[in-house]
Amino acid sequence: MRQDIKNLKYVFEPDSVAVIGASPKSSKLGNVVLRNFLEGAFNGSVYPINPKYKKILGLKCYPSVSNVKKRIDLAIIATPALTVPSIVEECGKKGIKGVVVLSAGFGEAGNYELEKELKKNAKKYNIALIGPNCLGVLNPHKRVDSIFFPIYKFGRPKPGSIAFVTQSGGVGSCVVDLASDFGIGFSKFVSYGNATCLDESDIMEYLAKDKETDAILLYLEGTKDGKKLLDRLKKITPKKPVIVLKAGRSKGASKAAYSHTGALAGTYLAYKAAFRQSKAIEVSDVAELFQTVNLLSQPLPKGKRVGVITDGGGLGVLTADAIEENELELASLSKKTTSRLAEILPSYGSVGNPLDLIADADAERYKKAITAFLDDSNIDSVIVVVLFQAPAVDSSLLDIIIRASDRKKKPILIVAMGGEYTIDSRKALDSYGVPTYVSPSYAVEALKKVTDYSFFLKTRKR
Amino acid sequence: MRQDIKNLKYVFEPDSVAVIGASPKSSKLGNVVLRNFLEGAFNGSVYPINPKYKKILGLKCYPSVSNVKKRIDLAIIATPALTVPSIVEECGKKGIKGVVVLSAGFGEAGNYELEKELKKNAKKYNIALIGPNCLGVLNPHKRVDSIFFPIYKFGRPKPGSIAFVTQSGGVGSCVVDLASDFGIGFSKFVSYGNATCLDESDIMEYLAKDKETDAILLYLEGTKDGKKLLDRLKKITPKKPVIVLKAGRSKGASKAAYSHTGALAGTYLAYKAAFRQSKAIEVSDVAELFQTVNLLSQPLPKGKRVGVITDGGGLGVLTADAIEENELELASLSKKTTSRLAEILPSYGSVGNPLDLIADADAERYKKAITAFLDDSNIDSVIVVVLFQAPAVDSSLLDIIIRASDRKKKPILIVAMGGEYTIDSRKALDSYGVPTYVSPSYAVEALKKVTDYSFFLKTRKR
Repeated sequence: MRQDIKNLKYVFEPDSVAVIGASPKSSKLGNVVLRNFLEGAFNGSVYPINPKYKKILGLKCYPSVSNVKKRIDLAIIATPALTVPSIVEECGKKGIKGVVVLSAGFGEAGNYELEKELKKNAKKYNIALIGPNCLGVLNPHKRVDSIFFPIYKFGRPKPGSIAFVTQSGGVGSCVVDLASDFGIGFSKFVSYGNATCLDESDIMEYLAKDKETDAILLYLEGTKDGKKLLDRLKKITPKKPVIVLKAGRSKGASKAAYSHTGALAGTYLAYKAAFRQSKAIEVSDVAELFQTVNLLSQPLPKGKRVGVITDGGGLGVLTADAIEENELELASLSKKTTSRLAEILPSYGSVGNPLDLIADADAERYKKAITAFLDDSNIDSVIVVVLFQAPAVDSSLLDIIIRASDRKKKPILIVAMGGEYTIDSRKALDSYGVPTYVSPSYAVEALKKVTDYSFFLKTRKR
Repeated sequence: MRQDIKNLKYVFEPDSVAVIGASPKSSKLGNVVLRNFLEGAFNGSVYPINPKYKKILGLKCYPSVSNVKKRIDLAIIATPALTVPSIVEECGKKGIKGVVVLSAGFGEAGNYELEKELKKNAKKYNIALIGPNCLGVLNPHKRVDSIFFPIYKFGRPKPGSIAFVTQSGGVGSCVVDLASDFGIGFSKFVSYGNATCLDESDIMEYLAKDKETDAILLYLEGTKDGKKLLDRLKKITPKKPVIVLKAGRSKGASKAAYSHTGALAGTYLAYKAAFRQSKAIEVSDVAELFQTVNLLSQPLPKGKRVGVITDGGGLGVLTADAIEENELELASLSKKTTSRLAEILPSYGSVGNPLDLIADADAERYKKAITAFLDDSNIDSVIVVVLFQAPAVDSSLLDIIIRASDRKKKPILIVAMGGEYTIDSRKALDSYGVPTYVSPSYAVEALKKVTDYSFFLKTRKR
């Protein structure tokens, strides 16, 4: 591994951080980032750097990193673009190994020479440099947080095992914000902007070895090195799933992508082929990205036979439609399951898949049905479609589902559509690693993608 | 119009209601429904009917409807199935013209004779009978509410102009609950269950003339009379859009539909052809139904040229992808618009469609861009993709968007993905009739459906 890639350790797990361009004014990036470290319970030393101030937010402020006598692992830079290359040079001299440049105004604004100079200075010292023109990094495990979105508007995720590498800070932040609201944890978040020194492949090389990361998400508009990306993906996917969202697939969009990040989107077909060849899981939209990520907390399905349990007959029918339209299969229940279920259904019910527990189903009836489905070796995945609105369903169903999911036997997916009460129930489940969906087709589309990936892993091992 | 269909007036707009099977026990349907009328501010007379009690919830309770001396417009029945036909006979004798039967245990449980008797008795008196085996009706304008889901779990919608006719109470209630949470109003909700007397076509015939209804949603597993449905749809769609969700499209699903409502799903291809021929707007999932409904509050687009405004470049790229993949068009901005926009963008921005307002865009920059897009006759619809998380965006943007939407010039769709702060912003917009979406593709898919419908209306008029 290249030394500057190795040095990402200092970006993600610093013991000491300098915020260069720190400011007492709340409208400034340098203020928001400094606050993140102070209020976010970061466990190391924090050094505000700005020649204009002696003290910021109660901390001693230094004119430059060279004035700090202690070691600094990570520098986060939020100063005007023109000042950045020389600041990076100073960082190098000081022995700082990790740098995040939030500032914009480089290649994406036509300032190519400035960006070259930045690159040269970082390379000279083997600095792991993220950016410029980016939102930077999050590591919830270490409370590292360079995101300059206010906390009241943008929820920070809890620690988890998903890493998100994104070319667009905006797209990345939307997904993370929504995920945080549902209690889905992340191991790392990297908005890499112009990818001047470290690009998506480099960052993924690091994450492939990262013990806190079990799965990688990638949002991409274009890459500067397609072959490198393909090779990297091929190496990672047998060990960790990679979900990729490629934007700029169409003509008008790829023009827009170019003006956004200066990345040549290239022909989408080439990307598509690369994703297929490398077994990356491709999604086409932020919502689909979120839905698929959500499912990674569950075990991989061993096959494509799906069991559906519901207390709303119509929702079962819609789920069956989605299963067949997505080329998964409705499982045939074993004889044992059929007779177990016959005992728990009221006389006016009938056993089948989808299994309609009838509108008067209580949590206990759900529990027995879920257990029977988990025990049936004819079923690879279980989708439970719940009407939390129904009078007979009480919140003990949440515990039942969470405990069933804890058995880690098969993937369990919950579908529940509704207003506040239903959304609160969904959030409770998601925060315990049980993925929830607002609509049968969203659940099934995610399951299809993960089932295909599981099949790839199985055929590889043979 | 058949007399029993006309009598739906008494179901939807009663001045007096009898709750038959009323109960003081909160676990009983007859209790929940009685409470709905008492606590929901229904403006007419309410008569609990139950020979077992003298008083329920402070109201005098009558042994049967014949003991009530005043006129009764609507009877809601929640007694055991076996008792229902004779109760309906009594209702007929009393001159009650509207009846909703919530009770289950008829044809769907194999009791075909009982259902025939129920039908005979209702027909004899020209009663407009909804059900049995259903959730019944809602009319938020008149506070009529037979839904037996507790209010803390299931939000009631505000008055609005959308009518929802659904074969499955569960599916219907999910959509209404979610819609209510987003402040989307309904004119009527009808869960018609077994359709013993009035089926989906009959109810739609009434709604076609209903002044409070501008658009109709239909959830359907199967119909007993396909030709009647096709004829009805053909008559309505030139005047009011009909959005239809047909469940039981696939083989396994149609089997499930049969055991759910006893409806023969028939071949899906026949339905699909009928929807296409009658210009009903077909959707394939509850989420898509919700998304498309949401857009009906906006004017119809005059064409398929879409303008996209965003402060998150990557989200603009994804929206452009969705537009081209759904066979809509990215509009070419007029020269006037291009020069107007050049003035409002910072020097490092560039004018285009998607229009990237850059991450530092404030509400004022948004306002100028939205105005320019609304004024440009090259643009038929406007999609605004907002990062509410961005520090420069404040809540004045909500007013700007709502006022722009109030001009009713073109459809305006908002895309915003994120956690609580973003969701609150979305709800504010939706409650003012501005449709919001969590993902670019969801917005574009809805826009495509509505654009096609608009095209149908235009070609008809020529």
